Amino acid sequence: MGRTSLSAAFAEVVREQRAKRGASQEDLAHDAGLHRTYVGLIERGLRNPTIEVGHALALALGTTLSDLIRRAEKRLGRT
Amino acid sequence: MGRTSLSAAFAEVVREQRAKRGASQEDLAHDAGLHRTYVGLIERGLRNPTIEVGHALALALGTTLSDLIRRAEKRLGRT
Repeated sequence: MGRTSLSAAFAEVVREQRAKRGASQEDLAHDAGLHRTYVGLIERGLRNPTIEVGHALALALGTTLSDLIRRAEKRLGRT
Repeated sequence: MGRTSLSAAFAEVVREQRAKRGASQEDLAHDAGLHRTYVGLIERGLRNPTIEVGHALALALGTTLSDLIRRAEKRLGRT
């Protein structure tokens, strides 16, 4: 089944998609207009980002928030 | 094009999907485990919900958060 919360699964998806692009947390933070520390906290599941922040992360990763969320939902075993 | 922010578009989608189900804000709040006042603020675009809150709203509306976000993205003119 996997994660207990969608935000924990979302954190993993962000980290994975960033790594796939060969980008650092600093690169992603810059492109999304967020602080590097905040991106690190999101990726570790220590912050539950808002939809607006998720949208900024998705655009910086070259995708859509619905795509990132769909990937996170799959990890939860629900679709 | 439409809305300037994804959260504003998301607010409209939540209101629309709730109305489509013939549910009140109070019904939705109850089913999502949120306060009625908070649901009202979200639907008016006065609060930017977290992904976890969006997930709870989606489940209470009988759908997924990725579906709600996809609908909101369409309203922004981006997909």
